Amino acid sequence: MDHASQAQGVFVIAPTPFHADGRIDEASVDRMTDFFLQAGATGMTVLGQLGEAPKMAHGESVSIVKRVVARAGKLPIVVGVSAPGFAAMRALSQDVMALGATGVMIAPPNTLRTDDSIVQYYAQASDAIGRDVPFVIQDYPLTFSVQMSPAVIRRIHMDNPACWFLKHEDWPGLDKITQLRAWEKDGSMRRLPILIGNNALFLDFEMERGADGANTGYCFPDMLVDVVRLSKAGEREAAHDLFDAHLPLIRYEQQPGPGLAVRKYVMMRRGIIASDALRKPGAALSAVARAEVDYLLARLALKDPRARV
Amino acid sequence: MDHASQAQGVFVIAPTPFHADGRIDEASVDRMTDFFLQAGATGMTVLGQLGEAPKMAHGESVSIVKRVVARAGKLPIVVGVSAPGFAAMRALSQDVMALGATGVMIAPPNTLRTDDSIVQYYAQASDAIGRDVPFVIQDYPLTFSVQMSPAVIRRIHMDNPACWFLKHEDWPGLDKITQLRAWEKDGSMRRLPILIGNNALFLDFEMERGADGANTGYCFPDMLVDVVRLSKAGEREAAHDLFDAHLPLIRYEQQPGPGLAVRKYVMMRRGIIASDALRKPGAALSAVARAEVDYLLARLALKDPRARV
Amino acid sequence: MDHASQAQGVFVIAPTPFHADGRIDEASVDRMTDFFLQAGATGMTVLGQLGEAPKMAHGESVSIVKRVVARAGKLPIVVGVSAPGFAAMRALSQDVMALGATGVMIAPPNTLRTDDSIVQYYAQASDAIGRDVPFVIQDYPLTFSVQMSPAVIRRIHMDNPACWFLKHEDWPGLDKITQLRAWEKDGSMRRLPILIGNNALFLDFEMERGADGANTGYCFPDMLVDVVRLSKAGEREAAHDLFDAHLPLIRYEQQPGPGLAVRKYVMMRRGIIASDALRKPGAALSAVARAEVDYLLARLALKDPRARV
Amino acid sequence: MDHASQAQGVFVIAPTPFHADGRIDEASVDRMTDFFLQAGATGMTVLGQLGEAPKMAHGESVSIVKRVVARAGKLPIVVGVSAPGFAAMRALSQDVMALGATGVMIAPPNTLRTDDSIVQYYAQASDAIGRDVPFVIQDYPLTFSVQMSPAVIRRIHMDNPACWFLKHEDWPGLDKITQLRAWEKDGSMRRLPILIGNNALFLDFEMERGADGANTGYCFPDMLVDVVRLSKAGEREAAHDLFDAHLPLIRYEQQPGPGLAVRKYVMMRRGIIASDALRKPGAALSAVARAEVDYLLARLALKDPRARV
Repeated sequence: MDHASQAQGVFVIAPTPFHADGRIDEASVDRMTDFFLQAGATGMTVLGQLGEAPKMAHGESVSIVKRVVARAGKLPIVVGVSAPGFAAMRALSQDVMALGATGVMIAPPNTLRTDDSIVQYYAQASDAIGRDVPFVIQDYPLTFSVQMSPAVIRRIHMDNPACWFLKHEDWPGLDKITQLRAWEKDGSMRRLPILIGNNALFLDFEMERGADGANTGYCFPDMLVDVVRLSKAGEREAAHDLFDAHLPLIRYEQQPGPGLAVRKYVMMRRGIIASDALRKPGAALSAVARAEVDYLLARLALKDPRARV
Repeated sequence: MDHASQAQGVFVIAPTPFHADGRIDEASVDRMTDFFLQAGATGMTVLGQLGEAPKMAHGESVSIVKRVVARAGKLPIVVGVSAPGFAAMRALSQDVMALGATGVMIAPPNTLRTDDSIVQYYAQASDAIGRDVPFVIQDYPLTFSVQMSPAVIRRIHMDNPACWFLKHEDWPGLDKITQLRAWEKDGSMRRLPILIGNNALFLDFEMERGADGANTGYCFPDMLVDVVRLSKAGEREAAHDLFDAHLPLIRYEQQPGPGLAVRKYVMMRRGIIASDALRKPGAALSAVARAEVDYLLARLALKDPRARV
Repeated sequence: MDHASQAQGVFVIAPTPFHADGRIDEASVDRMTDFFLQAGATGMTVLGQLGEAPKMAHGESVSIVKRVVARAGKLPIVVGVSAPGFAAMRALSQDVMALGATGVMIAPPNTLRTDDSIVQYYAQASDAIGRDVPFVIQDYPLTFSVQMSPAVIRRIHMDNPACWFLKHEDWPGLDKITQLRAWEKDGSMRRLPILIGNNALFLDFEMERGADGANTGYCFPDMLVDVVRLSKAGEREAAHDLFDAHLPLIRYEQQPGPGLAVRKYVMMRRGIIASDALRKPGAALSAVARAEVDYLLARLALKDPRARV
Repeated sequence: MDHASQAQGVFVIAPTPFHADGRIDEASVDRMTDFFLQAGATGMTVLGQLGEAPKMAHGESVSIVKRVVARAGKLPIVVGVSAPGFAAMRALSQDVMALGATGVMIAPPNTLRTDDSIVQYYAQASDAIGRDVPFVIQDYPLTFSVQMSPAVIRRIHMDNPACWFLKHEDWPGLDKITQLRAWEKDGSMRRLPILIGNNALFLDFEMERGADGANTGYCFPDMLVDVVRLSKAGEREAAHDLFDAHLPLIRYEQQPGPGLAVRKYVMMRRGIIASDALRKPGAALSAVARAEVDYLLARLALKDPRARV
């Protein structure tokens, strides 16, 4: 498929901005979209896990996609459609593709345990949403408890023409990239674009192992864009220098649970969204955690002046 | 709440009848509802796990509840509303309560690991659906991987006035019933109705330990009604004799995975539903499995003539 | 290997008899061994999960094997050697093989999640214990949380000449037997003996699907011997009649947790072992549970006079 | 207990040095012990998960403890004794305490799911090893899949006089430290020393939240000593500067699986141990991974000249 050529650079995982009372903040959705475009994003993913997708009613999900697609112009938009059953997955996929989304992202249900069951799941999912709808494999064992070996990913990719790219967030995962690229080289697998997630904790080396870019939502996506660019240009030292400057905060934001509150808090401080509110059962940062983030931001600004907030 | 008095006897877990092509079979929904009423059910639960709830689009779920409520007269109707997020749970709860459902059933997400997180989840769920909406705790660790100690169940029940009854399907679970009843006796817990599930595999002794009845979907709910009645009447030998006659089939139907196909196959053979079709990823029984069920039915008919099909 | 011909009939899973204070009861070990021989067992497995293996010090394990091997004559003895690391597994395997054990049983560690990791584990285990030491695959996902597809079992069997037989206790598991037998028929797998476990809850149909016998420890192993014999002789009705008579108790004993206490209690009542004591963290049956077992035994005696205790 | 006063600073988690063929490398054990002493360690933990404990035969474990105790003089030595059953745990505890170990470390088995079951497990473990043997709670959900709420840790600490300190490696875990310290302040818990693990990924803020030090095995324990010292002295900027210089490597070493190979590789390059060999199923680093570590070391040397290797 020709979408493959688009799967590079930084597809930002977008949070869903809420007002303090939990309503969707549409003005912030627009401002955030504009910001990502300006920051050099090559794509956007909405309604992922960190987009608080499971907390959204169907109608709300559709309204967000509509708004983002309208605002983002030609930017490819991926929509998270993971669901406990194929009916809800199909319904959301059809609605968002009709609105102009480019493709969807599917995580495996956390009960899958054998290679065959994972492969079968993606085949059935592709059938359910329509075999022409581009889909992204989300490989995130830390959250989903499903382990996909490289061989399983290859089978999914080879079996399903609509398989678009891999959101790679296995941990550890460096050797997985190396293995997949080796199979492409020896001809046993067609090209699979790889964008990395896991809050970019290993972006530096993942790029060097062969990733095409990032698909994550770190609160400074502009930095991700720069690291990806520098890495592809062979500016190794510069890429690592910039990455390392952000690593203390990346690490802090990567914490499961409070991580999303960190992300929203920084984006609020940067003026990208109006509030750092999360829907339940999410919770805002404690005062001490906010102070820690403030401290990290202050230190970051000394190393990366562009990151001053 | 006065619903508590209703939580006894047999609340049948209803499968969702489909045509061979996967569409909902409305005539079978009606016929099944009539059958349960006639069989002596004191309630019905629709859209549980074995009602294939996750495979249903929201609109389909609503249409089934509407149909069942209309058909079932004054029979209490419980609707499964478990969902990965509170938004979908709230949306479905509101819609089905407006249609006349009596309450909802909520299973915990399979990521909960501490006592506090389980207690908090039910409090937030009750908030989300409305604190006046009666809810059923589904305690089924085998499927949901969440272990609720008796103390956790007590906390949920004491914290939430809308807590209606416990669908008890822990395994092993006999001592859990004994513990809860002991706390009621010593005054440390208000009365909690207990209806047992797990395909009734321990119905005989669960009744003797203090259960109020069953909340499961074994393909002979008429037998469940009789066992509950006999047990409450103190007819111990008769209760066990009837139960034991069905046990080979109960055990066969209790298998995770193929169990639902067994249930639908027998209900089809009994003329209650027109087809034993499951929606994907469910699969029909293999020919050899059907032959095994046929054999079990033939043997059953010799021991329980009412069970001839 | 020529051991394969021995893997049929009933390999009884032996509990470890303790005195009330937790010391090993050697007289009961002898009496139990004699009883199994007399009951028609074709093999014995000691130090499995339900032999309380993890509660035994290395020296104790060795002493039990020594005693059983000496007592059991030519009966094949399998020893559970599952351990969190290969060093302990190797040490125990070497010691018990030197004492005359016939082979060992290995369960996978409950962290394995991909097909390849399971296959690799068994290859490394076979290397660790010695590639000439016959080993049994224990496939028990309910307890070990590891799902082995039929294809994985085939790979393990084909890769390791020392693979002796499969202790099959997947649940549901009937179709797994059918699949493995089909592969033997079409020549894609060499013969793999299958003995079933899971407290024999599906022994009736597992035999009909192609199992060679049982490898479990139900408190009436004499019944298992008879059902296996009847089933192999084509006496289908008689096999099911006998099995069904025991099913209420089989089901009760199959409960994870209290199941072993049930087993030991009945064996104590039968005079096979002197005490039903378990080592911690195991616990004896409650008074109400004992009464339930007594009741089941009384009912059983009416249906199977040989089972009078 | 008066051991509590000792639980501060850096208790280094020691790897077990092997020769390339898998034999224990005793000279490296000595050299490593000397190095830790010289680096300012206040304690040592041997035979933890990253000491490859499960791969060691009992006799090997004992021999290592003997050697380290003899070499380390008055340094407190903690020995990992986690085991699937209490018999092996007791045997190893008794042997190592007799040799002069100061206490033991116990991780919960990964099947525990309720608060009560965790609390009960530690009580039974303390009974098993002797209620006067100081033990460390290892709270590492990422590896052990057991979630201990702060309330559970408080119960374990209050119930067991021999509870020595908490090896805190929950993730996220900052708020857990804050909660435990708050309970100490309000008098609802006696003082519990907290040493942090998880490869020190959050050492900077964990110290500020109230940790007493570190109990981990990062390949530059000398840096851990300095960060702990700086943090306690209130030299916040200096502590973070040093920590941040190491963070790219800390993060790389924290990877589950290859992390231990990274640690051993760097310790070999530093001349502390002779070989980076792991016992099976562990594997050495790939060539590309070694090159990545070399690169990280080269960059580190520019920021922390003491870290030149």
